[in-house]
Amino acid sequence: MQRSDRQAVDAILNDYAGGRLIDRMEMPHRPDKESVYSLLEELFSVLFYGYYPSKARLADDPTDALRMVVEEAMLHMRHLVMSALPCDARYAAMSTAEIAEEAGEITEAFFRSIPRVRALLDTDLQAIFNGDPAAENRDEILLAYPGFYAITIYRLAHELQMLQVPMLPRIMSERAHSQTGIDIHPGATIGPSFFIDHGTGIVVGETTVIGEGVKLYQGVTLGALSTRGGQSLRGKRRHPTIGSSVTIYAGASVLGDTTIGDGCTIGSNVFITRDIPADTTVTMQDQELNLRIRDRH
Amino acid sequence: MQRSDRQAVDAILNDYAGGRLIDRMEMPHRPDKESVYSLLEELFSVLFYGYYPSKARLADDPTDALRMVVEEAMLHMRHLVMSALPCDARYAAMSTAEIAEEAGEITEAFFRSIPRVRALLDTDLQAIFNGDPAAENRDEILLAYPGFYAITIYRLAHELQMLQVPMLPRIMSERAHSQTGIDIHPGATIGPSFFIDHGTGIVVGETTVIGEGVKLYQGVTLGALSTRGGQSLRGKRRHPTIGSSVTIYAGASVLGDTTIGDGCTIGSNVFITRDIPADTTVTMQDQELNLRIRDRH
Amino acid sequence: MQRSDRQAVDAILNDYAGGRLIDRMEMPHRPDKESVYSLLEELFSVLFYGYYPSKARLADDPTDALRMVVEEAMLHMRHLVMSALPCDARYAAMSTAEIAEEAGEITEAFFRSIPRVRALLDTDLQAIFNGDPAAENRDEILLAYPGFYAITIYRLAHELQMLQVPMLPRIMSERAHSQTGIDIHPGATIGPSFFIDHGTGIVVGETTVIGEGVKLYQGVTLGALSTRGGQSLRGKRRHPTIGSSVTIYAGASVLGDTTIGDGCTIGSNVFITRDIPADTTVTMQDQELNLRIRDRH
Amino acid sequence: MQRSDRQAVDAILNDYAGGRLIDRMEMPHRPDKESVYSLLEELFSVLFYGYYPSKARLADDPTDALRMVVEEAMLHMRHLVMSALPCDARYAAMSTAEIAEEAGEITEAFFRSIPRVRALLDTDLQAIFNGDPAAENRDEILLAYPGFYAITIYRLAHELQMLQVPMLPRIMSERAHSQTGIDIHPGATIGPSFFIDHGTGIVVGETTVIGEGVKLYQGVTLGALSTRGGQSLRGKRRHPTIGSSVTIYAGASVLGDTTIGDGCTIGSNVFITRDIPADTTVTMQDQELNLRIRDRH
Amino acid sequence: MQRSDRQAVDAILNDYAGGRLIDRMEMPHRPDKESVYSLLEELFSVLFYGYYPSKARLADDPTDALRMVVEEAMLHMRHLVMSALPCDARYAAMSTAEIAEEAGEITEAFFRSIPRVRALLDTDLQAIFNGDPAAENRDEILLAYPGFYAITIYRLAHELQMLQVPMLPRIMSERAHSQTGIDIHPGATIGPSFFIDHGTGIVVGETTVIGEGVKLYQGVTLGALSTRGGQSLRGKRRHPTIGSSVTIYAGASVLGDTTIGDGCTIGSNVFITRDIPADTTVTMQDQELNLRIRDRH
Amino acid sequence: MQRSDRQAVDAILNDYAGGRLIDRMEMPHRPDKESVYSLLEELFSVLFYGYYPSKARLADDPTDALRMVVEEAMLHMRHLVMSALPCDARYAAMSTAEIAEEAGEITEAFFRSIPRVRALLDTDLQAIFNGDPAAENRDEILLAYPGFYAITIYRLAHELQMLQVPMLPRIMSERAHSQTGIDIHPGATIGPSFFIDHGTGIVVGETTVIGEGVKLYQGVTLGALSTRGGQSLRGKRRHPTIGSSVTIYAGASVLGDTTIGDGCTIGSNVFITRDIPADTTVTMQDQELNLRIRDRH
Repeated sequence: MQRSDRQAVDAILNDYAGGRLIDRMEMPHRPDKESVYSLLEELFSVLFYGYYPSKARLADDPTDALRMVVEEAMLHMRHLVMSALPCDARYAAMSTAEIAEEAGEITEAFFRSIPRVRALLDTDLQAIFNGDPAAENRDEILLAYPGFYAITIYRLAHELQMLQVPMLPRIMSERAHSQTGIDIHPGATIGPSFFIDHGTGIVVGETTVIGEGVKLYQGVTLGALSTRGGQSLRGKRRHPTIGSSVTIYAGASVLGDTTIGDGCTIGSNVFITRDIPADTTVTMQDQELNLRIRDRH
Repeated sequence: MQRSDRQAVDAILNDYAGGRLIDRMEMPHRPDKESVYSLLEELFSVLFYGYYPSKARLADDPTDALRMVVEEAMLHMRHLVMSALPCDARYAAMSTAEIAEEAGEITEAFFRSIPRVRALLDTDLQAIFNGDPAAENRDEILLAYPGFYAITIYRLAHELQMLQVPMLPRIMSERAHSQTGIDIHPGATIGPSFFIDHGTGIVVGETTVIGEGVKLYQGVTLGALSTRGGQSLRGKRRHPTIGSSVTIYAGASVLGDTTIGDGCTIGSNVFITRDIPADTTVTMQDQELNLRIRDRH
Repeated sequence: MQRSDRQAVDAILNDYAGGRLIDRMEMPHRPDKESVYSLLEELFSVLFYGYYPSKARLADDPTDALRMVVEEAMLHMRHLVMSALPCDARYAAMSTAEIAEEAGEITEAFFRSIPRVRALLDTDLQAIFNGDPAAENRDEILLAYPGFYAITIYRLAHELQMLQVPMLPRIMSERAHSQTGIDIHPGATIGPSFFIDHGTGIVVGETTVIGEGVKLYQGVTLGALSTRGGQSLRGKRRHPTIGSSVTIYAGASVLGDTTIGDGCTIGSNVFITRDIPADTTVTMQDQELNLRIRDRH
Repeated sequence: MQRSDRQAVDAILNDYAGGRLIDRMEMPHRPDKESVYSLLEELFSVLFYGYYPSKARLADDPTDALRMVVEEAMLHMRHLVMSALPCDARYAAMSTAEIAEEAGEITEAFFRSIPRVRALLDTDLQAIFNGDPAAENRDEILLAYPGFYAITIYRLAHELQMLQVPMLPRIMSERAHSQTGIDIHPGATIGPSFFIDHGTGIVVGETTVIGEGVKLYQGVTLGALSTRGGQSLRGKRRHPTIGSSVTIYAGASVLGDTTIGDGCTIGSNVFITRDIPADTTVTMQDQELNLRIRDRH
Repeated sequence: MQRSDRQAVDAILNDYAGGRLIDRMEMPHRPDKESVYSLLEELFSVLFYGYYPSKARLADDPTDALRMVVEEAMLHMRHLVMSALPCDARYAAMSTAEIAEEAGEITEAFFRSIPRVRALLDTDLQAIFNGDPAAENRDEILLAYPGFYAITIYRLAHELQMLQVPMLPRIMSERAHSQTGIDIHPGATIGPSFFIDHGTGIVVGETTVIGEGVKLYQGVTLGALSTRGGQSLRGKRRHPTIGSSVTIYAGASVLGDTTIGDGCTIGSNVFITRDIPADTTVTMQDQELNLRIRDRH
Repeated sequence: MQRSDRQAVDAILNDYAGGRLIDRMEMPHRPDKESVYSLLEELFSVLFYGYYPSKARLADDPTDALRMVVEEAMLHMRHLVMSALPCDARYAAMSTAEIAEEAGEITEAFFRSIPRVRALLDTDLQAIFNGDPAAENRDEILLAYPGFYAITIYRLAHELQMLQVPMLPRIMSERAHSQTGIDIHPGATIGPSFFIDHGTGIVVGETTVIGEGVKLYQGVTLGALSTRGGQSLRGKRRHPTIGSSVTIYAGASVLGDTTIGDGCTIGSNVFITRDIPADTTVTMQDQELNLRIRDRH
């Protein structure tokens, strides 16, 4: 190496002593993102075995193979939970043995919830099929629809969030966000038969509550009114409550701790910050009268 | 394994007998997503050999190498088509030999269309270069522009859609959607010299028809008015027809079976559900007069 | 192969002689995208070693390991720069030795900027933590927030852009765009403490200038007014200047060579094409009065 | 595909109906070789953590990381044992649940033996260091000596053989054979402080018994006299017993159910089929008198 | 880079102009070794599908999956043959189209031979099971015995050798040599029911002919008497002919164009350069009388 | 996990505190074997670029690509040397900076020797071609002959041994040993035009000296007489000196600090422990008279 190159290297090494927030050289535990992503692949095999069969070659009998897949996923989940728990101050003082114990219980609870999660996903699949005339069959939805993919990851991440596991739920939901453009916070509460179409740009905030049979189109925001409060708002309700059988069309925003009643329809690009009673249709007034149309000649 | 862990595993295995839509343990055929993604990589080598040269090391002469790449892609396409055809009820009763025969013919037809697809992509490349002042040269567009990537995949998926192959076109278009945020249904019909800029959030619906020389910016929706009809709308025209030389700026929506005439310009955020005659410019009326501007003091 | 298959293959090979823009069989150099992506992974290890430790197993001492990571990244950067420079007409006539020399100098300059980049990223991390009540701790932001990921890649790509390296900055920024839906042109100028939330659909154009402590939400466009001029606009200022401590809420657009003064707040969906003085709040007028609300009964 | 190619394919498919021994299209379980090889890698991490640290990134603390490695290896071992047991007629009739139970007990027993195996390997390492003047330090032996590698795999495979697991021990010992040319049957019994130098061509048969502190050089055979009896000899003692502190030089053969007493030295190329009393040196008589030496002129 | 490093690099680049035999910078075709190794894996799936099932996920039905595996292997074989043919002077002048044609015919002929090869391997498997008392069942032989592995590769490589394909047969046989220590030249002719035990160090030369039911143990050489003639001996018979039902024990050598009659047994370490009539047993005379036995005291 | 499984895990963790030689939990540096293997692949590209072209895609021009390959190999070599040096007591006390400096100098010296190594390998290639009538052309030798592969690795490892780098030379030579069964100690001194045929079982000891134009066949040992002295013999001459133009046939052993004069021929299975004058042929006396030949009837 040339002297000048070596100086550049040394300057970077020295820079790690600078007292910055990002100046970590070692972390005792760390929930590796790639490991979370492969756990998600394993969980897809657990949930939808016929569609995502295990790559493993130890058994041809599908039930035996599924059993091995489930056990493998349980072990990996437990290890990831062990690596994630110390990120939370509550666990920082625990001994490794206690953390391992805790991680085992959390993992078992998570896997006990899988049948419930599968039952919910079954309703979601049917809702998408009913709602999208372009859907040719259910297999296509399961294998190719970003909405179903994002909902699946949300439902898994939400279970972990309920079990108060740090880091992992957010890494999972950001995986879905990255793959689909759909950003559902794992803290949100979402009922059965949830339908998302296209999905890019959808935001569902942390304290949002969504009822049964809700449909969201691309670009819908269920967000907070203002985040100027920053960390002082932590844990406070600041996102909407959406009733059952509500449809929200593309680009609409519902902001703040408002309630949209059951059976409402919210039109494209509508911007709402107040409560809407049940069975109401809200659209932009004279949306097209507002246009200026000029002949180019 | 502890007893309680084993119970969790058994509960999941039992849950597969629950009669759910998602309860498949085996599918005789299944178009594996990863295989479709690697076929797409092979097809990029087929289309743009100099830019995506084969990784194979069997030949240094580029023509020989390209020949091998094409043959490899043909075989993989045929196998994927074989795995996909039984997903369609029309093929479910066919013998394996008949499906193999059919898959061979479809694959041959697909590859015969490649020169035509390359000719179209050539016009798309030129259109992007002409339209984007930030484009430094054509190579940059080919290697780095999400719009060009999404259009390429659309043009490939559309050919398969025309050949009535199930599943594969949608898996391909969702690949592009996931990578770029651009969601073009493979059933849409799009003319030459198509230009997409930025692209995130664009939706082009199944029965959309787009002319020559059209430009779309990020967040544009060419969608359906309402999907309340669900599966009853299947196959019906429900998306717009866009003429030639039309530009549609960011965030605009054109919904339903409307027609935008040749040469129109549709401004940002415009929302249209009716026909617009040729050579018309449509913008939001007094878009900025509408603002409320307050000094903070 | 059947005769008809062989004809399809030959037709594709012949098609490469057709004089198209895309008809390249060989490129002497070419900045391979996968190589850029792995360089980005190495640069994340350089910037945030504790969070993205090297996979290499040659040293357990983190400082030694980091040194190896930095040197490896320098070599790969130099090779990528060597492969990219000839894409620019200015370098096309240079000898290989001269290009290698130039690539060495550019690489050294890039790595000398790393401490400065790390200092900026430190401010960005703090800004996100302060601004997002859902952020549980700084590690979560570093490992899982798409905004921080996109800003990091922007800051790296921007340094390369300043060093006038062709192709690489754009491939990097499109990587971030693909992963996050956030499209920041590497030519943009962005001050410290930059905060992006959710981010999907954000566009920041090539000649944009952004001050210190700015917050952007999903779907914000800082773009050009019209690109009808195409390549004739190349290099001209056509994007906004955003002052310090400005917040721009979801879906807002600021277009053209306008200036938003320090301390402004721009509301959701606002569309601005003119200058806004400092300390001004701009929102949609009577945004909700504009709604048409119908009871469904 | 051409007709003639298709005929070749069909002929192969038809050939599977031919009633051959090798005509299996499906095996319900199957101990996949690649999985055994990766289990071996995991077991090397379990045995020698500092030398073969886990690739996993979930923990930096070596004890935590080792714990995860051990648990991962236990799960994989259990699954491999589950896949292997049905290869033995004794298990063919068991239910899956019984096999899983049995596999769990075998796996636990195997891992309980690990400290004992490590104690034996410690003596082997010391023996090699003492015996080989070319050995620079113990780390070199642990990382690079084929003899130590083969002995390690033998000791692991032998434990599984003692637990009567079918298939896995042999796949493991053939792995060592392939990597080193040293073929030790997992059924052999070998005492502590075992030393192998160079090793290529060594054969140690199934019913061989070897004492403490034995040294073997390349090409040594401890084999059976004749195998004409074939399967009728199964399980019968047909290989030598080697006492403690015996050295056997390159190319020597000891065949049949003979005994070499403690402290013997067996010279190069010696061929022995009878008992040798303790403390005896056996060499070829006048090995060099036997040569015919001609000047070439 | 430092100047002195750069000089070292330049010296290497310059060295390629030195007119050496090894000074190739480009080869138009080249049968890549890794590709041959993966073809071998595919051929093992073709031969023994139940034991080496395809990793592909496109079909669960084993016959469909096997068909895809065979077709994939045929394509890869054809491409490898295309890359290998120009290595032979006879093909150097052919056009690419002619070589492709030739490669297609060779490949088809090779795959037509597969049922015959499978029939031979079936006899080999039975012979090993009959001959080795340590063999627990046939599956173990198929999955773990180096002798069966080497014979399988020999039988495949021999077919290609008969079809006069350059390079590939030797790369295949060296693969087996590397994995097992068994070096069988693909030009050798070997009858059914061939049995190899342990195998390390076995050499079977190019013009060797072996009858039916022959057994070879480790370290057996069937070689040439002297190779002083070098290239002048090319193609001449210079290796032994071994009759049927011959057993040759460990370390024996049979050299030159000699004949060992049917039913012979050749003892350990025997060295033979002349013909042996049928049904003869040849052993070392007084092999053990020759030993010098000393008490160490 | 069940309690008993957990106990097994804990027992293993506790076992690491047992004060064994193998009880390392952490090593500050460690020359990772996989990294050495990939360095060897890079060095094969450096030595024989046309045969082992780089997989990298950054440049199509072979000289540019080779330059990048050489630089990449230099960096990896330097890092491996840095990780290996502290294994030697002489370096244990050095600072990291000093070790880095030293590693840089060693690496540069190694790469300066490459042209000399290539010149030697050129003579080896020619010698093999001249000596083996089965060799069809030089490309086959370069791509498929284990003898040439082992000699290449020996010549590389020997340079590192001369530069007194610990660990790496031995890991390299064991790689060749594992792949070919040829075990050449990197400390041996071997002249040009070295020819190895078949090779399995060859052993060439640490202090062996071999002249020009020597041929070795499978199973030849050039070894020490006795290693009873163990570590006390370290560094002492204990292996043979082989003159030029010597041929040693299969299975022969030359042991101890003896000298075989120029032009000698040593026959199969000969065992020599004393000096042989130049131009002598040594064979087993009446090797075949010694046989006992019995008719089986």
